[in-house]
Amino acid sequence: MEEQLTQVKKASLELATLSLQQRNQALQSIASELEASRVELIEANQQDLDAGKSSLSQAMYSRLVFDDSKIDNLIAGIADIREMKDPIGEVTLQRELKPGLELKRVSTPIGVIAIVFESRPDVAVQIGSLLLKSGNAGVLKGGSEARHTLQAIESVVARATSRHDFVPANWLSFIQTREDVSELLAYEKYIDLVIPRGSNQLVQSIMSRTKIPVLGHADGICHIYLDEDYDQKEALEIVSNSKLQSPGTCNALETLLIHQLRFDDFKKALAQHSPEIELIEKPKSWSIEYGSAQLAIKSVESLSSAIDHINTYGSHHTDAILTQNSSHQERFLAEVDSGNVFVNCSTRHSDGFRYGFGAEIGISTSKIHARGPVGLEGLVSYKYQLRGKAHLV
Amino acid sequence: MEEQLTQVKKASLELATLSLQQRNQALQSIASELEASRVELIEANQQDLDAGKSSLSQAMYSRLVFDDSKIDNLIAGIADIREMKDPIGEVTLQRELKPGLELKRVSTPIGVIAIVFESRPDVAVQIGSLLLKSGNAGVLKGGSEARHTLQAIESVVARATSRHDFVPANWLSFIQTREDVSELLAYEKYIDLVIPRGSNQLVQSIMSRTKIPVLGHADGICHIYLDEDYDQKEALEIVSNSKLQSPGTCNALETLLIHQLRFDDFKKALAQHSPEIELIEKPKSWSIEYGSAQLAIKSVESLSSAIDHINTYGSHHTDAILTQNSSHQERFLAEVDSGNVFVNCSTRHSDGFRYGFGAEIGISTSKIHARGPVGLEGLVSYKYQLRGKAHLV
Repeated sequence: MEEQLTQVKKASLELATLSLQQRNQALQSIASELEASRVELIEANQQDLDAGKSSLSQAMYSRLVFDDSKIDNLIAGIADIREMKDPIGEVTLQRELKPGLELKRVSTPIGVIAIVFESRPDVAVQIGSLLLKSGNAGVLKGGSEARHTLQAIESVVARATSRHDFVPANWLSFIQTREDVSELLAYEKYIDLVIPRGSNQLVQSIMSRTKIPVLGHADGICHIYLDEDYDQKEALEIVSNSKLQSPGTCNALETLLIHQLRFDDFKKALAQHSPEIELIEKPKSWSIEYGSAQLAIKSVESLSSAIDHINTYGSHHTDAILTQNSSHQERFLAEVDSGNVFVNCSTRHSDGFRYGFGAEIGISTSKIHARGPVGLEGLVSYKYQLRGKAHLV
Repeated sequence: MEEQLTQVKKASLELATLSLQQRNQALQSIASELEASRVELIEANQQDLDAGKSSLSQAMYSRLVFDDSKIDNLIAGIADIREMKDPIGEVTLQRELKPGLELKRVSTPIGVIAIVFESRPDVAVQIGSLLLKSGNAGVLKGGSEARHTLQAIESVVARATSRHDFVPANWLSFIQTREDVSELLAYEKYIDLVIPRGSNQLVQSIMSRTKIPVLGHADGICHIYLDEDYDQKEALEIVSNSKLQSPGTCNALETLLIHQLRFDDFKKALAQHSPEIELIEKPKSWSIEYGSAQLAIKSVESLSSAIDHINTYGSHHTDAILTQNSSHQERFLAEVDSGNVFVNCSTRHSDGFRYGFGAEIGISTSKIHARGPVGLEGLVSYKYQLRGKAHLV
């Protein structure tokens, strides 16, 4: 593995010097090669589907499907990524330190980024395209149930980019086994950033095993605090949308905090409005991500208690207040220590696409580097360039 | 320790809500209290100096001194920090996602930052002031040889800020022993960032023991590549300044790469120009930070070999090229993978003060979060605020 990573590291240094035009050309080739390789890709995927038919859950099986419509989406996604503004080479600071001594801060690729993802094999193309756009080399590890599909994707991408002399071989490298991941996580010398995309268990297991910076989030324990004054009908709609619109996603609601004066009444109304929600008044813990129609509810005596609860038991992902009281709105936005803090809307808005970032790399609950939904700009670093005329100190 | 860190974490949430005016008031009180406590501070320092007289090296002893002129500098430094623009509450992105659904990205404090430093006790005041300005709580650990001075500083700062109801107690907490540091480094739950300031050994030992993000650099293995065409006299001045002006600092030159066609000649000229530099042609390793007048030198056959050498053996801190060839300048700036890349000037310019950032938190060789010299903006994160009118997904 060290030999493989040395190659990727070397490729990253070359990739960092490509022009926007070169990177966009290579992206275009990936799109064309996907188009030309539909049969190959779908046949490979069929092998994985056949092998997984009896062993995979229905949800996993459907995520594994890589069909024409997935390929259409990927090709459209690459067109979007080509349109995006160049994240590299942006001058974010410029000043003359002394006469003739010019300082610039310029955005650069990060280097080598490892992505470990589960199930959906199309993620490999999506992420690969974002890495290429931002001049980063990558090491990808997908789910073993998608083995054949991923091998086909690997060879499609390699064929596409090898058509351009300027794209270094090995810029996108694949690893296969869990043991490979363990080994990879020890190589902080070659890997600059790890992005896990998958279940809490996956993310937590990666975070606990590496000193390489990790971009991501383990839990999405999202809250709504329903204040004293907010319209009941609107509150019912927002709570129901936040919990039920897609219960398995990280920005779905897990705990509803209700002002004590309306707790009983709202609980009853919610049970009528959304009978499919299973209300839990005495959860085993206030830090559970149900990922289902279950919803923990609690009566709180004030805004302060709600904020305390969220900062104590939450996962700093996405939390919302429903209130007309503008000083309560501002306190909540300022005091809740989460990457996404909302007023009077569904927690489900917390998403890179909805924020207008285009493709999303992931959602980070760290406060270092990138926080919240992370788009292309989470894949860049910067360097200081200083141009002088024999200046001494 | 967990109890102490819980308190600091709690304080960080309160501190994050202070206005700029409140933070500046508290800074002013620290300056006034330093002024009023000169005798107390200098007496405490005298105890440390007496205790260290026989055991400390001269360099360590002189760094330990905390006298009137150090206090003057600190008071002037606090005045500068008060003048700085508020790093918190800056809106760095604003857009309407749907009619009435307003997204803002706002800069926020990071939370709790631990700083582990060696020797110079005045660092505690400097760092404490930067933390306060940026709304961050802190845990500080200084050198044990400065024990009495640090205790006096702790009590001066606590007296000063406790005068303001709005400043939470425990916002700046001190720990004492190496064992405390080890314990601290395991509490990623309470500490958002660790900044080590001191020797390579200190930094490396901290980086190897924690999963908390670390801002800093272990080695400063800085290079100059002298190209074929650059003026000899200017090159001698720049090399000499980079190596000798302050050999112990991280931005001092450690390895000089010379184009093969002028290697012998330049070596001879350098020996005459700066006889105090000890030239080393066969170093044990190309990754040594001498921190002294020793300088590794090597003949390279081209710009590409120089760049390869630097990317392979350097520490990604600060590297310079001396050349009039503008395409060589641009290739060096683009291809050398370091936080600071220079053309035709001394490596010693790599410094937050010289870059105009005001007080420097440290220099980072990581590519995640902050890179290069880090000022106040390295102490901030951000959050997304979304204000809606009952918007659903």
